[in-house]
Amino acid sequence: MAITLTERAASEVKKVIADQNQPGETMLRVRVVGGGCSGFSYDLRFDNTFDEKVDKQQIAKGMNASPGAAVGKAVFESHRAAELAAKGEKVILVRRETTPDDLDGMIAAQGVLTSRGGRTSHAAVVARGMGKPCVAGCEDLSIDVAAGTLRVGAHDLRAGDVITIDGGSGRVILGSVPLVPPALDENFATILQWADGVRRLGVRANADTPEDAAKAREFGAEGIGLCRTEHMFMGEERLPVVREMILARDEEERRASLERLLPMQQGDFEGIFDAMAGLPVTIRLLDPPLHEFLPSLEEATSDAMRDRIRQLHEANPMLGTRGCRLGLQFPEIYEMQVRAIVRAARAVHDRTGEAPLVEIMHPLVGFTEELARLRELTERVAAEEPTVEYLCGTMIELPRAALRADEIAAHADFFSFGTNDLTQTTLGFSRDDAEGKFLTYYLEHGILERNPFEVIDEEGVGDLMRIAVERGRGAKPAIKLGICGEHGGEPHSVAFCHGLGLDYVSCSPYRVPLARLAAAQAALADAGVVAVAIGG
Amino acid sequence: MAITLTERAASEVKKVIADQNQPGETMLRVRVVGGGCSGFSYDLRFDNTFDEKVDKQQIAKGMNASPGAAVGKAVFESHRAAELAAKGEKVILVRRETTPDDLDGMIAAQGVLTSRGGRTSHAAVVARGMGKPCVAGCEDLSIDVAAGTLRVGAHDLRAGDVITIDGGSGRVILGSVPLVPPALDENFATILQWADGVRRLGVRANADTPEDAAKAREFGAEGIGLCRTEHMFMGEERLPVVREMILARDEEERRASLERLLPMQQGDFEGIFDAMAGLPVTIRLLDPPLHEFLPSLEEATSDAMRDRIRQLHEANPMLGTRGCRLGLQFPEIYEMQVRAIVRAARAVHDRTGEAPLVEIMHPLVGFTEELARLRELTERVAAEEPTVEYLCGTMIELPRAALRADEIAAHADFFSFGTNDLTQTTLGFSRDDAEGKFLTYYLEHGILERNPFEVIDEEGVGDLMRIAVERGRGAKPAIKLGICGEHGGEPHSVAFCHGLGLDYVSCSPYRVPLARLAAAQAALADAGVVAVAIGG
Repeated sequence: MAITLTERAASEVKKVIADQNQPGETMLRVRVVGGGCSGFSYDLRFDNTFDEKVDKQQIAKGMNASPGAAVGKAVFESHRAAELAAKGEKVILVRRETTPDDLDGMIAAQGVLTSRGGRTSHAAVVARGMGKPCVAGCEDLSIDVAAGTLRVGAHDLRAGDVITIDGGSGRVILGSVPLVPPALDENFATILQWADGVRRLGVRANADTPEDAAKAREFGAEGIGLCRTEHMFMGEERLPVVREMILARDEEERRASLERLLPMQQGDFEGIFDAMAGLPVTIRLLDPPLHEFLPSLEEATSDAMRDRIRQLHEANPMLGTRGCRLGLQFPEIYEMQVRAIVRAARAVHDRTGEAPLVEIMHPLVGFTEELARLRELTERVAAEEPTVEYLCGTMIELPRAALRADEIAAHADFFSFGTNDLTQTTLGFSRDDAEGKFLTYYLEHGILERNPFEVIDEEGVGDLMRIAVERGRGAKPAIKLGICGEHGGEPHSVAFCHGLGLDYVSCSPYRVPLARLAAAQAALADAGVVAVAIGG
Repeated sequence: MAITLTERAASEVKKVIADQNQPGETMLRVRVVGGGCSGFSYDLRFDNTFDEKVDKQQIAKGMNASPGAAVGKAVFESHRAAELAAKGEKVILVRRETTPDDLDGMIAAQGVLTSRGGRTSHAAVVARGMGKPCVAGCEDLSIDVAAGTLRVGAHDLRAGDVITIDGGSGRVILGSVPLVPPALDENFATILQWADGVRRLGVRANADTPEDAAKAREFGAEGIGLCRTEHMFMGEERLPVVREMILARDEEERRASLERLLPMQQGDFEGIFDAMAGLPVTIRLLDPPLHEFLPSLEEATSDAMRDRIRQLHEANPMLGTRGCRLGLQFPEIYEMQVRAIVRAARAVHDRTGEAPLVEIMHPLVGFTEELARLRELTERVAAEEPTVEYLCGTMIELPRAALRADEIAAHADFFSFGTNDLTQTTLGFSRDDAEGKFLTYYLEHGILERNPFEVIDEEGVGDLMRIAVERGRGAKPAIKLGICGEHGGEPHSVAFCHGLGLDYVSCSPYRVPLARLAAAQAALADAGVVAVAIGG
């Protein structure tokens, strides 16, 4: 059923877009009430689902613990799941229940199925954290790991038999069911149009390639809020040159390698500017530590490389030589990137007649002097190239940057809150070491109610953001403020960003519609419109 | 010359204790002016010095780049320095200049001597950071690494020849000169007595053993501000039991190992309470991640141990499962420690008739609920044992804890600022990965003026401390506030803590006199007494 409304009815309807979501869900349940279609209910899904037109043999039903559908071979041991996945096979991890020891298996699997535990079991919490489908507490299952068999009611399965699970409904199906990607029908478009009519927050996407940029536009993104450049250093033809650059014995050698990377980087940026014509694109200069581009010590191919790997080894890479610390120590890297950006912008302008809206972003700034010097570098290099308009700004992703936002604002045209790293540092949580370990324990035992990497920790991280907004705008009222952490696509966090007065949120392309709706809901709540939910 | 003064003169003199120190120096230069001894100058040294009564053959003089004296075999290559040091030999690293590649050699050496560079050279900055003697820019040296020879003016030395350097004066001496530890003469005592008369801040020490506690008392410490318990888990007879506990397959096995550790821990605490009779002792429950107690994967002696090592491996251990995250996941560990503390306090009370002033401190709290649960655990265990008075509090060492100090204060009798970790998280600097690497680069290139691990970053970390003091005292005016990071013994940082209104600073025993003086200077400055320096 397509929604059709008179203009008057639509203006009433759009007042009530109620959000009934749980944090961590990738489905947005929208209930529209009022006008000509009272009681209309519409679920916007952002996960794969079953093709419901296909015949299916349902063999069991458990709890809908983490949404989305998945197909794969049933395996009963986590190490086996990891082995098969490493060979490119798709597997469903089937366990009585999971423990932190199953983490590798869960990461490797397409989805998780357990016979014990509910929505707050380890399997459910971790799977939701990973955005992976999970059916939990499916009591009809009887697993015999030693024998490699799985009895489901009257059905006897063996390890390796293919099953399909739907974490949104809790269904377990024998064999493979075709999956359907989230659909964008005309109702979807109608509702989002209403949302766009009322929201104040801009919505951008995080995208690193022209393909992602195009996808983001299709979902309604109004620009790119975070274009990471590290993936551009990883491509098959680039990595050897990047490694050469890292192994260089001096600046001259390093510059020679960078010279070869320059045209490739320029090409990357041209593609993205083309895809985002007329919309702003925020490009973050190189962020990860250099050792991420080198192989492991065991795979190193020369003594020089082994030496360099040892030299670059870090005890806590999250807090080491990365972000602008790299750009300051090896200015030639950021110089190359700035040059590539400016040349790409000029080339696109000359070709299309339209100037891209370029925003150059420096990562991991904590001290004013860091940004002052990098802005100087940016302006110096840009001045050597044909004229291009651009903005120069910084991520706010360290507590110190938030606290000193007033001073830092003097050198920034914009701030973008990097709430992933800001959460890691403010809470002292390494995401890699928290999820599936102590953070899962905290969630299961009620020490924390929500995963702060999914829903912004408003009282801690949010307080620092508030301080940064106050101090940053206090020093420079016109400064542009956005968020590019994963929180930018989570409805509660979007509402928080609306309340803070940010200019835009930026999230993964697939989350853009969710963010548009959440931004509208926040604006409606502001205007005193009470959300009303009807039906089940 | 001993200082003797009439009472009236002393009261004038003590008004002017001028501090001319450079951050990072371990020598406090006190110039006393006024009263009966105008122009008297007195250097309090906290480093080894030469025995000046012994004949010495000075062969060169360089810049006094990092104070203290050191003796050792001259070596010209860093890897060689590390090799010899590993065999227990004392070496002086002699280089033209140092680079980050020399870090291992600098760590291994007793002191560093360079022929190039000044007080801001890599060698000087890093050596000061390490608290290691350094003579820099000694231009009379000519090093031939390949030949293994060192020409100093008319002297030809070979690698392995013993030399002595004095980083306080820049002198280089042929052969070994007996070193003299810092002396505490009667002038020293007089000046500190004056300081104690004017300072408002209490001064405690960080001490983990009865020996350190006794040393701290000797230097005038008024209690222990940080007694770390992890070293007690490291002793020869404990480590096997600790490992057994970590490898335990379930809580029951873990409790059995902990039962065996309990009497040992009790003994540790009794010794410390005895040494600190009548003074407060703050005991921090177990803080480091468990993998720190296991050997390396290569040295593991069983498959079970290898499995556990792999399982406990962390990408960023600084931000992983440590501190109260351990205590919440394995409550039996903290229960054992609380029981040992309470029993030890009772035993000392029964034996001496004096009750120790016990403060139980929970590390790495970021969320109120963490401390609420650990306070409950503490009170429950204490209630099972004979009655003992104690306080229960927390470290403030995460930005989130500082921001939520109001809520956290509801469950805390005291806060102790852990400024080492608070600096790491607020700035996003892993100390291990910063010093000698990007932080050294920042200091050498003027991006930062001071090492924030030596002198508190007042604008960032200090701003969070200010927020925590305001919010913590706002919620609980009587809450006791201290600092136990290394900054607690650095004069500029002590002055900052005075300004914040903390109750005490706590530092290493050898820094206690420095802290007492710095606290007095801060109080005098508060009272409008301007510090005056006379003489050279």
